[in-house]
Amino acid sequence: MGYTIQKTVFGDFDQVVETTIDALKDDGFGVLCDINVQTTLKEKLGEEFRQYRILGACNPALAHEGLNEDIELGTLLPCNVIVYETNDGGIVVSAVDPHRLLDVADNDALDSIANEVHDRFEHVLASVADELDSPSEA
Amino acid sequence: MGYTIQKTVFGDFDQVVETTIDALKDDGFGVLCDINVQTTLKEKLGEEFRQYRILGACNPALAHEGLNEDIELGTLLPCNVIVYETNDGGIVVSAVDPHRLLDVADNDALDSIANEVHDRFEHVLASVADELDSPSEA
Repeated sequence: MGYTIQKTVFGDFDQVVETTIDALKDDGFGVLCDINVQTTLKEKLGEEFRQYRILGACNPALAHEGLNEDIELGTLLPCNVIVYETNDGGIVVSAVDPHRLLDVADNDALDSIANEVHDRFEHVLASVADELDSPSEA
Repeated sequence: MGYTIQKTVFGDFDQVVETTIDALKDDGFGVLCDINVQTTLKEKLGEEFRQYRILGACNPALAHEGLNEDIELGTLLPCNVIVYETNDGGIVVSAVDPHRLLDVADNDALDSIANEVHDRFEHVLASVADELDSPSEA
């Protein structure tokens, strides 16, 4: 069973990242963490790696609600959206499935939050795909 | 079943955070992400919240190994260590149990990485408790 929801798009990598960040903001998520995996692995290990970004997305109201339910929940936050190159020239935008992630906390009171984040992530991915897959329609 | 491993210590909050970051570094983790939850909730929602930090800890070599096993793994990284105040004057340092987190990916090849991160997190927590001279808990 997969643990992410994703779209594959085509275009300039940095533009895909920017479009994803903008779409997250439009759906109420701040990006609290932005890790450039390629740069980090090069600097720390001298390893070459594909372009790969980890964006830590947080909706403050939902995070607040979740932390009030379970103070340890911060160990699972923020919910990540990653952007990476594929071997065939595509770019994957992939969000962790919040149901799978929050299942770790095993608390039914978090289900409604997982539902809300899931719906918003679906909308974010659809927005990114619309924005990048149909430039001629813009 | 719990999904974190933790210690309760006493002392100055910022000193506990610094001690935790230093202990993570000593065990090979960089802190790639540092979220001040209290400040974020105040700024974004106007809500008062206890002092609470989320530290995203990453060992580059283990992350590289994991990403080579499962390119989607970045949706679960970095592994978080949180530091927060309790209601009775203590400070909890709590790390996500990497077994529970990586179980989400459902890939046996990640077990050895989870074991390694788990052992290191146990050592980090023990170091923090030693450094801060925490009283033994009943």
